[in-house]
Amino acid sequence: MSFSNFDDAKPGKVTLYDFPKGAYPARVRIALHEKNLIGKLDFVFIDLLKGDHKTEAFRTKNYSRTVPVLEFEDGTIVLECVALTQYIDNIDGKPALTGTTPLEQGLIHMWTSRVQNEFLEPFNLYIHNGTPGLGPNVEENQNKEWGLHQREKGLKGMRFFDNLLKSRPFIAGDKFSMADAAAIGAMIFLDFVNEEVPKELDGLLAWYERVHQVPSVRAYFDLIKDL
Amino acid sequence: MSFSNFDDAKPGKVTLYDFPKGAYPARVRIALHEKNLIGKLDFVFIDLLKGDHKTEAFRTKNYSRTVPVLEFEDGTIVLECVALTQYIDNIDGKPALTGTTPLEQGLIHMWTSRVQNEFLEPFNLYIHNGTPGLGPNVEENQNKEWGLHQREKGLKGMRFFDNLLKSRPFIAGDKFSMADAAAIGAMIFLDFVNEEVPKELDGLLAWYERVHQVPSVRAYFDLIKDL
Repeated sequence: MSFSNFDDAKPGKVTLYDFPKGAYPARVRIALHEKNLIGKLDFVFIDLLKGDHKTEAFRTKNYSRTVPVLEFEDGTIVLECVALTQYIDNIDGKPALTGTTPLEQGLIHMWTSRVQNEFLEPFNLYIHNGTPGLGPNVEENQNKEWGLHQREKGLKGMRFFDNLLKSRPFIAGDKFSMADAAAIGAMIFLDFVNEEVPKELDGLLAWYERVHQVPSVRAYFDLIKDL
Repeated sequence: MSFSNFDDAKPGKVTLYDFPKGAYPARVRIALHEKNLIGKLDFVFIDLLKGDHKTEAFRTKNYSRTVPVLEFEDGTIVLECVALTQYIDNIDGKPALTGTTPLEQGLIHMWTSRVQNEFLEPFNLYIHNGTPGLGPNVEENQNKEWGLHQREKGLKGMRFFDNLLKSRPFIAGDKFSMADAAAIGAMIFLDFVNEEVPKELDGLLAWYERVHQVPSVRAYFDLIKDL
């Protein structure tokens, strides 16, 4: 099946507002590569380091001031990584990242939430609260104690997922899924704050090598290298 | 269609560990009522006020120590409200709460995440950090400043959703969905901390009346009244 457009049910231009190297944009870009849709949309670069996401103009698109944001020509907006992945992965009726049977869908959503809650979000909160983050011109209401506590939570989560990955190839089981893309986001955050994964966490480290062999993940890292 | 079991693809007894009046359990119980599955499972009461969710026994089921947790007879566990709702709603192939077309699925997941991030989770964090929460024997690592900041965020979120609901009957549009169940969770939290919704937020208040007329929501509140 070939697309004349991004989504046959929603004609017109599609724009993704994002920061390509960011942990959250990575999750959605991997889904776009997985479904061969990355070339079907326009991109607008939102420079998080300059606070582009905190302008009033951006806030009218997204009250929460997060990226990525997908916008259709008619003005319809879709945001939030799980929602975007669920949508993108199902456009062609052949989900590759979000499960096919109801239970598989449930388990993939479960592992995605668990990665978010125990690994990805704690490091996000640590970066924005326990470190200088995006700098004094962008960060607001930093709470260092909370940030450092979240780092501890994230480190425990990292060990939890390492343990899980000692006995299965991917987060949700035998197949690469949306949950792995979320965990790649967490690894991008670790890299951002130079937090090394200890060598004994060989489940997690072997998994990270493994996901780099997944074509959509490789395509994502190849593409952003040059941006 | 009638079920001989909870899920034809997953035979055997199904157990839900939860705290029926809790904001998160409410979301999943509404889905169970919606799909006429509430009578198809066993319930185990986890008394959050006594810290039942923080015991080692419970932690082996759920590392994150949250409810609800669904357990199949073979030991398979599904948790996290979005995951459980996605699963439960799709068991019979006729989703009522999570959308049918890809874009509808995406938008419902988006609104669910937005309710979580801007309204439900801020009040959850406020309760556990900015108030005595579940009491000194259960709460750990409270951070009052963070809790109070989250209350401010949640109050802003409440106004955002009030404004949205002035121009549409339900959170994700014309139909009751998983996103409304999440917002009902937020209203349960408001009630828990005696936070009144100001009268001028008539979009939100009218919506709360409206969702109480939805049969699954009415059935949920009727059932827990007597628990």
